[in-house]
Amino acid sequence: MKIKRSERLVDMTYYLLQHPHALIPLTFFSTKYKAAKSSISEDLGIIKRTFSAQGIGLLETMPGATGGVRYVPKVKDREALEYIQQLCTQLSDSNRLLPGGYVYLSDLLGNPDVLREVGRIIASQYFDKDVDAVMTVATKGVPIAQAVAMCLNVPFVIVRRDSKVTEGSTVSINYASGSSQRVEKMELSRRSLKRGSRVVVVDDFMKGGGTVNGMKSLIEEFESELVGVTVFAQSNFHGKRPIEHTHSLLMVEDVDVDDKTIQVKPGTLFDDLLEKQKISE
Amino acid sequence: MKIKRSERLVDMTYYLLQHPHALIPLTFFSTKYKAAKSSISEDLGIIKRTFSAQGIGLLETMPGATGGVRYVPKVKDREALEYIQQLCTQLSDSNRLLPGGYVYLSDLLGNPDVLREVGRIIASQYFDKDVDAVMTVATKGVPIAQAVAMCLNVPFVIVRRDSKVTEGSTVSINYASGSSQRVEKMELSRRSLKRGSRVVVVDDFMKGGGTVNGMKSLIEEFESELVGVTVFAQSNFHGKRPIEHTHSLLMVEDVDVDDKTIQVKPGTLFDDLLEKQKISE
Repeated sequence: MKIKRSERLVDMTYYLLQHPHALIPLTFFSTKYKAAKSSISEDLGIIKRTFSAQGIGLLETMPGATGGVRYVPKVKDREALEYIQQLCTQLSDSNRLLPGGYVYLSDLLGNPDVLREVGRIIASQYFDKDVDAVMTVATKGVPIAQAVAMCLNVPFVIVRRDSKVTEGSTVSINYASGSSQRVEKMELSRRSLKRGSRVVVVDDFMKGGGTVNGMKSLIEEFESELVGVTVFAQSNFHGKRPIEHTHSLLMVEDVDVDDKTIQVKPGTLFDDLLEKQKISE
Repeated sequence: MKIKRSERLVDMTYYLLQHPHALIPLTFFSTKYKAAKSSISEDLGIIKRTFSAQGIGLLETMPGATGGVRYVPKVKDREALEYIQQLCTQLSDSNRLLPGGYVYLSDLLGNPDVLREVGRIIASQYFDKDVDAVMTVATKGVPIAQAVAMCLNVPFVIVRRDSKVTEGSTVSINYASGSSQRVEKMELSRRSLKRGSRVVVVDDFMKGGGTVNGMKSLIEEFESELVGVTVFAQSNFHGKRPIEHTHSLLMVEDVDVDDKTIQVKPGTLFDDLLEKQKISE
């Protein structure tokens, strides 16, 4: 079907957004729209400029016979920080305080708008890291893993604390749960992760880091490589040392059950940016 | 910032796709691009035609002071069926057979491309049903719930079989698990679902329907309304009667552990369409 430039732009934008990180040959578009490659190149120039100007992401063009175009979702650091600062305000609401000093997060982790942004922000860190899979532990990490996997266009795998008959054979490890000081077990279906994969780990909340360390061990069992860890929120009130290559979007600094106050600030992901802003002030 | 029509079309397409089901006033776009409302209307006309022609979805325009434009992701029935027929072939692979006659699905339910399509197909059924929330049960239903919720732009809520301290107070019910003939418990955080919500239930796999019936009871406990149920796959080999308002994308007709064969056909969602095709042949 031959269509006009304006309609091509709409459909190409849709197609690129639906296939992040996929290399699409120019011939794909020129065949689809019965248009000359030179016209397609001009279209892509317009899309590239707009994506860049509007903070939608990068449009990478690779020349040559094996070349094509690739859409990479990428949030600008400042835009990410602004969004996270809004979330800090939401999280500091004392209504979120649960018995035991826990903070209620389930509404945010079930909200499409939040997940879309959080997914883009986390994925932006790993956009050039050749990630093969995103890993998390059931259940609360799953929405974040899915949101990140959607942006990186790679599968996500779910580690479980309980065995399921619908998973086939599994690999299990024991790990020391930081918060409860117990030895626990986690397992992953053998067929869910290929050997030699490059894996990003995500989770909803990190206290002692025991679960994250467990996932690191599991990745080693699969002879795979940990690319990095990003958690939605971490607590700072246990005096733990930071875990290498681990970042958080949000830092819960203090929870006071008596006064009913929660203090939340941007997580370690923004340390450098905030430091720079401080200096330039 | 004043920009050209071609760039507006790219950015508007992006914005609409990121905000499905949201009513966006024309003034939002005319302010954003410093353009006349008449120009924005023309842009939206182009986008609407393209979305319709390419099967991207509907672009609904509401006139008047409270009016605006709304993007509704909607897959055409035939396109949905074609996609599901491809999935049938993938699912019939004997390598998916697990001990006990279970079928391995985790790779599909962790694949961004599959989830995007499955989300669109399920959401298309409920696009005009004023859905307030999508419900599922942990853990395997979560990716499907999230994919559907993204398309409908409503929150999703996760029912659990085990209690978590990070959820606050919960409402629990007992239900008869069809497959194991036992009475089990499921619960949902009290604050996760508002009274009077209109809820769509999704899950990965349905055998006896016990879990789905449990979720129905839970929705009643929240004085809310069940709009419909759609499961990714259901089994047909237990001779159970169909549950009202419940559809499946895939029907696992037969699993033969000895012969190592799985027979999968399109689910009940496509019964009417397949019937029509049969007649017209």
